[in-house]
Amino acid sequence: MAVETVASAVSASTDFGPAVALSCRECGERFPLGPIFACEACFGPLEVAYEFPSGDPEGLRRRIEAGPTSIWRYAPLLPVPADVAGKPNLNPGFTKLVKADRLARELGVTGGLYVKDDSGNPTHSFKDRVVAIAVEAARNFGLTTLSCSSTGNLAGAVGAAAVRAGFRSCVFIPHDLEAGKVVMAAVYGGELVGIEGTYDDVNRFCSELIGDPIGEGWGFTNVNLRPYYGEGSKTLAYEICEQLGWRLPDNIVIPIASGSQLTKIDKGLQELVKLGLVEDKPYRIYGAQAEGCSPVSTAFKAGHDVVRPQKPNTIAKSLAIGNPADGPYVLDIARRTGGAVEDVNDEQIVDAIKLLARTEGIFAETAGGVTIGVLRKLIETGQLDPADETVAINTGDGLKTLDAVAPTTGPTAIIRPTLDSFREAGLA
Amino acid sequence: MAVETVASAVSASTDFGPAVALSCRECGERFPLGPIFACEACFGPLEVAYEFPSGDPEGLRRRIEAGPTSIWRYAPLLPVPADVAGKPNLNPGFTKLVKADRLARELGVTGGLYVKDDSGNPTHSFKDRVVAIAVEAARNFGLTTLSCSSTGNLAGAVGAAAVRAGFRSCVFIPHDLEAGKVVMAAVYGGELVGIEGTYDDVNRFCSELIGDPIGEGWGFTNVNLRPYYGEGSKTLAYEICEQLGWRLPDNIVIPIASGSQLTKIDKGLQELVKLGLVEDKPYRIYGAQAEGCSPVSTAFKAGHDVVRPQKPNTIAKSLAIGNPADGPYVLDIARRTGGAVEDVNDEQIVDAIKLLARTEGIFAETAGGVTIGVLRKLIETGQLDPADETVAINTGDGLKTLDAVAPTTGPTAIIRPTLDSFREAGLA
Repeated sequence: MAVETVASAVSASTDFGPAVALSCRECGERFPLGPIFACEACFGPLEVAYEFPSGDPEGLRRRIEAGPTSIWRYAPLLPVPADVAGKPNLNPGFTKLVKADRLARELGVTGGLYVKDDSGNPTHSFKDRVVAIAVEAARNFGLTTLSCSSTGNLAGAVGAAAVRAGFRSCVFIPHDLEAGKVVMAAVYGGELVGIEGTYDDVNRFCSELIGDPIGEGWGFTNVNLRPYYGEGSKTLAYEICEQLGWRLPDNIVIPIASGSQLTKIDKGLQELVKLGLVEDKPYRIYGAQAEGCSPVSTAFKAGHDVVRPQKPNTIAKSLAIGNPADGPYVLDIARRTGGAVEDVNDEQIVDAIKLLARTEGIFAETAGGVTIGVLRKLIETGQLDPADETVAINTGDGLKTLDAVAPTTGPTAIIRPTLDSFREAGLA
Repeated sequence: MAVETVASAVSASTDFGPAVALSCRECGERFPLGPIFACEACFGPLEVAYEFPSGDPEGLRRRIEAGPTSIWRYAPLLPVPADVAGKPNLNPGFTKLVKADRLARELGVTGGLYVKDDSGNPTHSFKDRVVAIAVEAARNFGLTTLSCSSTGNLAGAVGAAAVRAGFRSCVFIPHDLEAGKVVMAAVYGGELVGIEGTYDDVNRFCSELIGDPIGEGWGFTNVNLRPYYGEGSKTLAYEICEQLGWRLPDNIVIPIASGSQLTKIDKGLQELVKLGLVEDKPYRIYGAQAEGCSPVSTAFKAGHDVVRPQKPNTIAKSLAIGNPADGPYVLDIARRTGGAVEDVNDEQIVDAIKLLARTEGIFAETAGGVTIGVLRKLIETGQLDPADETVAINTGDGLKTLDAVAPTTGPTAIIRPTLDSFREAGLA
């Protein structure tokens, strides 16, 4: 297969920092680092395995704290070379951890509530984190074209990252995407190809392209670079703990699309404990889905280990993956840590977007509404203890999903430009 | 007058850090710090006067570098209390200074080119900087309602900042604003009042409100809090110089709306020199306008000292102030430093937005297109030396002005989901 040839050809001369291999999450089989994503033995998903330096947590902590204000401060824990910050890239991450006291009061949280606000990333979603790691892998493998299938956010993140890093990009989207999302995907000037078909058709086409000679030299962030790409989400765990003063929170509420972000945040927390960067203590991981695409929460509530695919129908389009690849791992983690997976409907999503905006001045995209809505529901149903310290993740910016709140968000009053008119409106 | 009574009542017990008075830019008359904006003697605009600590630039530099990664690292140089970072606010600033090597190559800049990217602020425009200072002034004066007249960006910045800082907000916009901008202004849940009239009508109404008893306790960021508000723009100068390694660039290109940002950046640079934080050397300040609203560049080119008002007609709506308050000061600064003021038309604005996106992965709003377009024109016309080191400021995010690029930004191709169709499109 074309991509595997590339992999074995380049893996000897590359620099992935502390990463030493890819290992199968199912059978544990190991493979050299390369642009591959599935186990040859069992077809299980591959993930990056590391050999971390050990024995000097204080030194490592100081090294991180002296690093750049981006994900690259954690280069010693990522599959990237030590000098990664010097290479041209978007420098995402190290976004704000907002102490959300007003939201806490509204929700009755007494143990401390934080919002990790990833709308502060360069293209305003957490995708900049994962794409940045995929780009470094593509550089290592000598790939020349960055690609992905996308319904919007990822296309923009890949387009922007490719430009800065000096790659050609060619991104695939369903042809009937909303105009605004097309602009965000197209404005960076790479090739943007509309596919006559659904998002599933786009994905199938991309898989075909990877197996074809045309696809040689191509890095699909969410396919053949997926093992690297996914590691970017670990940085959310690192940042949350560092920003709390190098300690674990009690609870983290995380939105679920493929489930990869949630599983990698858990991986990141475990690494911090193993490296002695934070003290070990119990923590709970909660997953958040939209009711209109809730395969994982449905399985969680039914006590199932497998996730039955659903046909998505929700305003939270960035979470609308009906057959989430990491669903079973999410179930494991929620159960192991004593967390839960919950869902909210579209009306609750919109309400939660507005709640976060009017309490904390953070305008979240629909995925953020899912997280905050689920947080509220978890508290109301007694699944999350309000006396605990909780972190909720906002993965993207409200400017990307204006349509979700537009119908119910408008002026308080329309008046003539006179004081009398102002008084009559009851606003004085 | 109601607001002045408030001012004299509170000015004794307030903490404005190093700020000691308001002084008239025209006649030099001094007034106690208060929510006033015009000189009682000559009606000139007031600005903040400071008594800075002197004699230990190295100590001040270290104190700044050890500070928070927001504008509050410069608290010793702003009209705010020393403990400002501990008060609830949006913590704007310390945005990325992007080394723009690819853009430099396209433009023929050989001396080094940087884009100061203020789209990274909490509500994605530089307005978060100025509003944050106005909010602290409002806190100091015991005001309870934050307000402004706005065509969009400022409304959102005020709405979000008010929420976080615990103020009521009541913001005024023309009633016929685009739906997207209304959402951004309304989502934070404060009062949003649509005024049946133009932006000028909105401004006149706000002035009336300030003079009326209804307006007691109200802080209009861009009216009675304007002297404080404007100081926020100084932080752009501080950040640029610190991020360059505590030195002045040769040139800075700055968009002009009221002209306040440009004059305050110059003020900030002068302060850094006086305090010994950077070495003195010549620098040039360039102003950027849209041709459809170019009162300052028209006056500059004609060699006039006064600015004749224009009726704006440009896609760069956030710069569309036909009668810019600081226009004459801008002319002074451009001439004194050996810079210039230039303008570009709507087509050149759109081209420049796309140029910045495809070279640096930065998606700017129309104001950013004006700045980059003018930079290109300044080089082409020999007004800016490409062998100099230049910084261009992007003041806002492209997601806010999608309509500007939408008509000319789309997919490269629409294909069927087959390799043959991909090959036929000439993309393989």
